[in-house]
Amino acid sequence: MYSVSVRDHFMIAHSFSGEVFGPAQRLHGATYVVDVEFRRPSLDDDGIVVDIGRALDTVRAILADLNFRNLDEAPEFKGRNTTTEFLARVIFDRVAGAIRNGDLGDQARAVQSIRITLHESHVAWAAFEGLVNATS
Amino acid sequence: MYSVSVRDHFMIAHSFSGEVFGPAQRLHGATYVVDVEFRRPSLDDDGIVVDIGRALDTVRAILADLNFRNLDEAPEFKGRNTTTEFLARVIFDRVAGAIRNGDLGDQARAVQSIRITLHESHVAWAAFEGLVNATS
Amino acid sequence: MYSVSVRDHFMIAHSFSGEVFGPAQRLHGATYVVDVEFRRPSLDDDGIVVDIGRALDTVRAILADLNFRNLDEAPEFKGRNTTTEFLARVIFDRVAGAIRNGDLGDQARAVQSIRITLHESHVAWAAFEGLVNATS
Amino acid sequence: MYSVSVRDHFMIAHSFSGEVFGPAQRLHGATYVVDVEFRRPSLDDDGIVVDIGRALDTVRAILADLNFRNLDEAPEFKGRNTTTEFLARVIFDRVAGAIRNGDLGDQARAVQSIRITLHESHVAWAAFEGLVNATS
Amino acid sequence: MYSVSVRDHFMIAHSFSGEVFGPAQRLHGATYVVDVEFRRPSLDDDGIVVDIGRALDTVRAILADLNFRNLDEAPEFKGRNTTTEFLARVIFDRVAGAIRNGDLGDQARAVQSIRITLHESHVAWAAFEGLVNATS
Amino acid sequence: MYSVSVRDHFMIAHSFSGEVFGPAQRLHGATYVVDVEFRRPSLDDDGIVVDIGRALDTVRAILADLNFRNLDEAPEFKGRNTTTEFLARVIFDRVAGAIRNGDLGDQARAVQSIRITLHESHVAWAAFEGLVNATS
Repeated sequence: MYSVSVRDHFMIAHSFSGEVFGPAQRLHGATYVVDVEFRRPSLDDDGIVVDIGRALDTVRAILADLNFRNLDEAPEFKGRNTTTEFLARVIFDRVAGAIRNGDLGDQARAVQSIRITLHESHVAWAAFEGLVNATS
Repeated sequence: MYSVSVRDHFMIAHSFSGEVFGPAQRLHGATYVVDVEFRRPSLDDDGIVVDIGRALDTVRAILADLNFRNLDEAPEFKGRNTTTEFLARVIFDRVAGAIRNGDLGDQARAVQSIRITLHESHVAWAAFEGLVNATS
Repeated sequence: MYSVSVRDHFMIAHSFSGEVFGPAQRLHGATYVVDVEFRRPSLDDDGIVVDIGRALDTVRAILADLNFRNLDEAPEFKGRNTTTEFLARVIFDRVAGAIRNGDLGDQARAVQSIRITLHESHVAWAAFEGLVNATS
Repeated sequence: MYSVSVRDHFMIAHSFSGEVFGPAQRLHGATYVVDVEFRRPSLDDDGIVVDIGRALDTVRAILADLNFRNLDEAPEFKGRNTTTEFLARVIFDRVAGAIRNGDLGDQARAVQSIRITLHESHVAWAAFEGLVNATS
Repeated sequence: MYSVSVRDHFMIAHSFSGEVFGPAQRLHGATYVVDVEFRRPSLDDDGIVVDIGRALDTVRAILADLNFRNLDEAPEFKGRNTTTEFLARVIFDRVAGAIRNGDLGDQARAVQSIRITLHESHVAWAAFEGLVNATS
Repeated sequence: MYSVSVRDHFMIAHSFSGEVFGPAQRLHGATYVVDVEFRRPSLDDDGIVVDIGRALDTVRAILADLNFRNLDEAPEFKGRNTTTEFLARVIFDRVAGAIRNGDLGDQARAVQSIRITLHESHVAWAAFEGLVNATS
């Protein structure tokens, strides 16, 4: 299996609901350094998994929609805890959608699975991985 | 598949038995930076894999039992080479046990598999991964 | 010159005032990974710059006061942009004060200068350094 | 599953063929920081996956054959784009061959799969993983 | 002293002249991960050293001029070994010039000194630092 | 000021004397990842600070003398706490001596100052820096 990974980041405010979160129930924030790994069993005609430049552009566009926001006020996350692992899944769905839409080029539709990792500090990170088609 | 990872470290002395180890047959030591990855197919009611704070506390307690020791004198490792990969398995067994015991909370019992990575330097690391139940 | 450095982190929400900040004028947040470097020209009687455990405890206590907060509502920062470099100075003043107060032990009063670095992402960080006494 | 990983690097010049590569069609170069992960289900008699020293030596020898070269003039890559993911596969084939040849010792023949990761910058990396025998 | 640092990278081909370089006399290449540190004794009216976004844009523009090139054919480096430390100085001169030209804004003219670090691998890096005005 | 830095590591056992060290009074160990920074105001005739390959070889030879040892039994450290900062100084003295001896080549005698950093974990490191001649 081949893979290509790219890295970018975004910065948000949010708070969590539930006793388990302790002081993180207060409004606070995070920088998420995001790694997106694209996997496929064989390379395309150009000898690549995806074009790294195009992958970086696609990821930047997806993160720009989240960047510099208070996620507590985001209608799409209403009633949800926007935890690191939850956000990994949100970004997974959007990157998978971009691949299916051809935003990374026709050949990138052969990407089989992706893994999204969000680093929230030097001691904690979370990830979601799954198939690009029929994600579950 | 979702995952959450946390990082901590411990520092020990030990020596190895066997020609393959060359100068590492002498008493020496290591800092192990430890990454523990918890994996499960769906999030719990709070939207998490495990509580990161509780995960860090559990890992710290498990590493405290190894920290600042000469492993050559540890009765539990008698006759064994406490290599990086061996220690990854030791910590795996203890973290898996803690999950089964409910030390990370009831909901964390749904963690399916874990991966323990021990970084021994900037150029070498080792890992053990397996299922939390029926580890083999 | 000798130095010892320790690392910890904190997570906050805030917003900035001023056109230069663009979208960062909106309420957002950050994880700051904090490095504190202690410098002195000679070691103490135990052969150390400062005790690393005590240094980690002191830094943790100082960061706990900032952690999981919305800095826009912090009375002590009213009317100020809590930029990365500004916060580096805030933490500098508090660590310098802790040294002068003897929180790191009597021998640590010989620490001459400190440097505080706040990493806000994998592509940006800021620092403040100065003398422990007569900071300016 | 156990694993041991080692890191080394090599530096090459090359250019790419195909519009998708944009300015990378010009002769340029890269440092590749290479991680080689060796995996097997159980440890050998010495309690290891592979000897880390021997693994580092084997990887260094394999990378030495690529290091400080212009890959555009390498006969073995004629007509191919030597992308990061392509080179990960090249190194995979050579490390797998070395294992099968016994270069890492007899016991290392039990290594089941390997993963080669090439970091080309702080924001992009690629990998190839597969079985040591019957690689496809 | 306050500082702000930003990171970017570029990828080039080159060769060196002189026996000391051994196999690096052959045409090869490198990825340089570049850190640019801006230092000044006090913050500007917005509470910053320089605007991080603008700093990243300026550095990207300067590196774009070097990126994806064979430096052996660059007229401006004719007869010079484009070593890591030499390139750190080249970038220093260009960033210092950009500051003096006001490319980072009027307030950024108060930046006193800068430090350019080029990481060429996980085991080697080089830097040049100096004053923005009267560089020597 | 120009600088070139190289990285290597060594692994030792030791214990500390003094209540301040708490559990580190027991025999334990550490991996030290060592960065050696060489500084000089101008480049040599080849356009370098020091030859990176030769610097790596020199540092490896110096660390080999400490590697895989129990420092409690090292006659040269009798009665001393071999703390991270103390060891940074030990290595400083040896690298400075190597420069003065011409081990890095005649032109490297122009190196003015060096800085030795020992990383003992992901959250703690220590350093010693000083002039190559007239070190104090």
